[in-house]
Amino acid sequence: MSEDEGITVKKDENYSEWYNQVVLRAELADFSPVKGCMVIRPYGYRIWEKIQSYLDGRIKETGHMNAYFPLFIPESLLTKESEHVEGFSPEVAWVTHGGDTKLEERLAIRPTSETIMYTMYAKWVRSYRDLPLLINQWANVVRWETKMTKLFMRTREFLWQEGHTVHATEEEAAEEVMRMLHVYKDVYEHLLAIPVIIGTKTDKEKFAGAKYTTTCELLMPDKRAVQGGTSHHLGQNFSKVFDISFTDKDEQQKYAWNTSWGLSTRTIASLIMMHGDDKGLVLPPSVAPISAVIVPIIFKKDREAVLEAARSLRDALSGFVVELDDREEYSAGYKFNHWEVRGVPVRIEIGPRDVKNGQVVFVRRDTGTKRSVSIDNVSGELRRELDDVQTALYERAHTFLEENTHVVKDYDTFMRLMSENGGGMLKVQWCGSTGCEEAIKDETGATSSCIPFGEEPSGTCIYCGEPAREVVYFAKHY
Amino acid sequence: MSEDEGITVKKDENYSEWYNQVVLRAELADFSPVKGCMVIRPYGYRIWEKIQSYLDGRIKETGHMNAYFPLFIPESLLTKESEHVEGFSPEVAWVTHGGDTKLEERLAIRPTSETIMYTMYAKWVRSYRDLPLLINQWANVVRWETKMTKLFMRTREFLWQEGHTVHATEEEAAEEVMRMLHVYKDVYEHLLAIPVIIGTKTDKEKFAGAKYTTTCELLMPDKRAVQGGTSHHLGQNFSKVFDISFTDKDEQQKYAWNTSWGLSTRTIASLIMMHGDDKGLVLPPSVAPISAVIVPIIFKKDREAVLEAARSLRDALSGFVVELDDREEYSAGYKFNHWEVRGVPVRIEIGPRDVKNGQVVFVRRDTGTKRSVSIDNVSGELRRELDDVQTALYERAHTFLEENTHVVKDYDTFMRLMSENGGGMLKVQWCGSTGCEEAIKDETGATSSCIPFGEEPSGTCIYCGEPAREVVYFAKHY
Repeated sequence: MSEDEGITVKKDENYSEWYNQVVLRAELADFSPVKGCMVIRPYGYRIWEKIQSYLDGRIKETGHMNAYFPLFIPESLLTKESEHVEGFSPEVAWVTHGGDTKLEERLAIRPTSETIMYTMYAKWVRSYRDLPLLINQWANVVRWETKMTKLFMRTREFLWQEGHTVHATEEEAAEEVMRMLHVYKDVYEHLLAIPVIIGTKTDKEKFAGAKYTTTCELLMPDKRAVQGGTSHHLGQNFSKVFDISFTDKDEQQKYAWNTSWGLSTRTIASLIMMHGDDKGLVLPPSVAPISAVIVPIIFKKDREAVLEAARSLRDALSGFVVELDDREEYSAGYKFNHWEVRGVPVRIEIGPRDVKNGQVVFVRRDTGTKRSVSIDNVSGELRRELDDVQTALYERAHTFLEENTHVVKDYDTFMRLMSENGGGMLKVQWCGSTGCEEAIKDETGATSSCIPFGEEPSGTCIYCGEPAREVVYFAKHY
Repeated sequence: MSEDEGITVKKDENYSEWYNQVVLRAELADFSPVKGCMVIRPYGYRIWEKIQSYLDGRIKETGHMNAYFPLFIPESLLTKESEHVEGFSPEVAWVTHGGDTKLEERLAIRPTSETIMYTMYAKWVRSYRDLPLLINQWANVVRWETKMTKLFMRTREFLWQEGHTVHATEEEAAEEVMRMLHVYKDVYEHLLAIPVIIGTKTDKEKFAGAKYTTTCELLMPDKRAVQGGTSHHLGQNFSKVFDISFTDKDEQQKYAWNTSWGLSTRTIASLIMMHGDDKGLVLPPSVAPISAVIVPIIFKKDREAVLEAARSLRDALSGFVVELDDREEYSAGYKFNHWEVRGVPVRIEIGPRDVKNGQVVFVRRDTGTKRSVSIDNVSGELRRELDDVQTALYERAHTFLEENTHVVKDYDTFMRLMSENGGGMLKVQWCGSTGCEEAIKDETGATSSCIPFGEEPSGTCIYCGEPAREVVYFAKHY
């Protein structure tokens, strides 16, 4: 069958195959000849550009500047911070030769850039006047995953931004961590129409080398969770190892405080999973490369009149990215399917009767709802329709998250829920021990998602029965 | 001495040291702990973002879309096109290990992406309806140079865009090659204020695997030339090797025609060299991260009045990126130098007398010219001043190019000019043989720069005396 014929499996029957079909047939991405690496095709990359544009704006608005650091990290640098190297070295790709010459020291392809950036920061930071140092980098990174590749969700190379900042005090760094976590929350909620749960990672799940890690956690339709973006307080772990120190106002020499935070092309995996349906992709208007597609309904007679009206319509909608599909060789039905697979938020149909009546028909991708709209107010109506779609997608996702987040008080219920497909977000009381966390993982496959902010523990640990010290979400994770 | 004290060598006394000082002290870039690789600092990266923004707009306007292909190229793919691999394999960085595991096949870090992209294109292109395929990629690439690193000009990793297109006919591909060459010409002339000579590379100097290469050639102040951006007609060389074929309208199966074109962060090296002076960087307003800096001239009395006027001035100029340097701890003289090193196009001074007279003083970075401007029309005047600086820089560079481009009729004159520092662009008649080209290189160090478009050869080859078949520019190249 042709790739354009649509999605042949149902989302709730074979979720994994459904996902691959959507990615491939909407032409978001493709498998590449390099094992574990993907190609991001133009339509998928346009979505990434929209995410970048929003996020880059927010990053700059909050005082950061972009820069670029080397792809390569000498082995001796990568191994300087011990927890960090332990976390990353099993999945590092190593360059050993330049041309025909063996290198004196192996070079890691950056899995993340703390070590290379902080080496430079040590050189640039001298005085409190140089602080805060607020730098972000848009880059490719490589982690030599051994798990199965999943397009956008897990590939050996991916694209991201990584912010790396230096502050004079622990408090300022803590504020920065929260500031950027909330920017990520906004990316998900305002742009991608996906509600998130924010909180702190447990020690077991935190970033290798961090004092603590904050995270945006998402719940996918298969009731499994995704870590959507993280913002780390690195304390003085790296500043001590890399000697990022400064002369403070009181003329004392002090070690600085670091944060780092990253958001990757994985966002697109969550976007596809969250909103897509049996017909294919469903895109929130805020990240849709095309806001609406005009499909003229053409019969032999009235052909020219309809095409002319369709062209006028496109001109009337010049404030939006609108595609006029006036291809001669395809039927209207074929075109409906073609654009549904690609998730275009609104289809605008215009036929001979519409031309006569001075109207067009809007068809919403998310609900399939049709309504006639007067041509005189088509631009305002499209704006409203797109806003409605954006809101409806967020609300649907929000309802799903609420319906699948459960406060669980006893371990039997916990095990039962986790034994069902996915399981959802289970909120429990926890004693805070890594032992209990690991036992829960071993027995149910669920890992801790996050410790939500500002919730007081009460009662006893769901696993061991000791007094609770944290409230924590557990979920099965991607 | 402090890095902020300014440039300590003169541009025409020690050009190379001058260049390094400007790059380092304007905080455009820095040396990294990875040999041959640089760090692009925020101020330098902002210039790259401005170039990207302009060029990306032009690339999209001409119908291309961005995408992203893997960083890695399996060795077997890289070696498929024989001329191509011969050109690139000596300078490839090789990944041999992922984590602790030796890879079955070595992976090249992309030196350029023809081979990985065309493998995918072969899969995507089936019919004439899929053509033209117009894709661009913004990416990092690695070429394991053995020559000495020069910040921005020659580093082992650099940033660029590479466009790769597929066309149904040779003519369409030829049009694409010229279209993108002219876009590059506009980047230099309109944005960077650097005039270029465009033309075709000789066979000896063309891209490895191309049918022909067109180029933008720039002449630097040391009278050496830079290849500033190239646009290649790849003919069917790659489409035959990678099997990019399509069913045409006439139902015949045909090989497609490819083009590729790239522009890199090397642009910034040319920008620095071309316009900089003994005080440091001089930036054309179109790419300057900061358009103007306001320096309040503060004495003890009138302090508050001047600072308040400076803040109002900043607000009045909110349509521009303007920096108000109200740092208490530095003198006005220190600040002048600080912003001159960084090439900010206009300095605006405001002191007690200016406040009284309702005026400010504009100081142009390129000429040092001062003029008083009424505060009432400061925004319009700044716009005009910036336009004037942009035009003046282009004109100065254009005059330099004209004065150092010589039509040379005999080899003695050619040798004499080339033996002088740099030599300039020497336009000569040439028989077209690689032998003469190589002999000239061996004897003078000059390589062919380009064969300008539309010039008729006449007379005899400057080297061998045989009938001329081409007009060609020679220069010493970076």
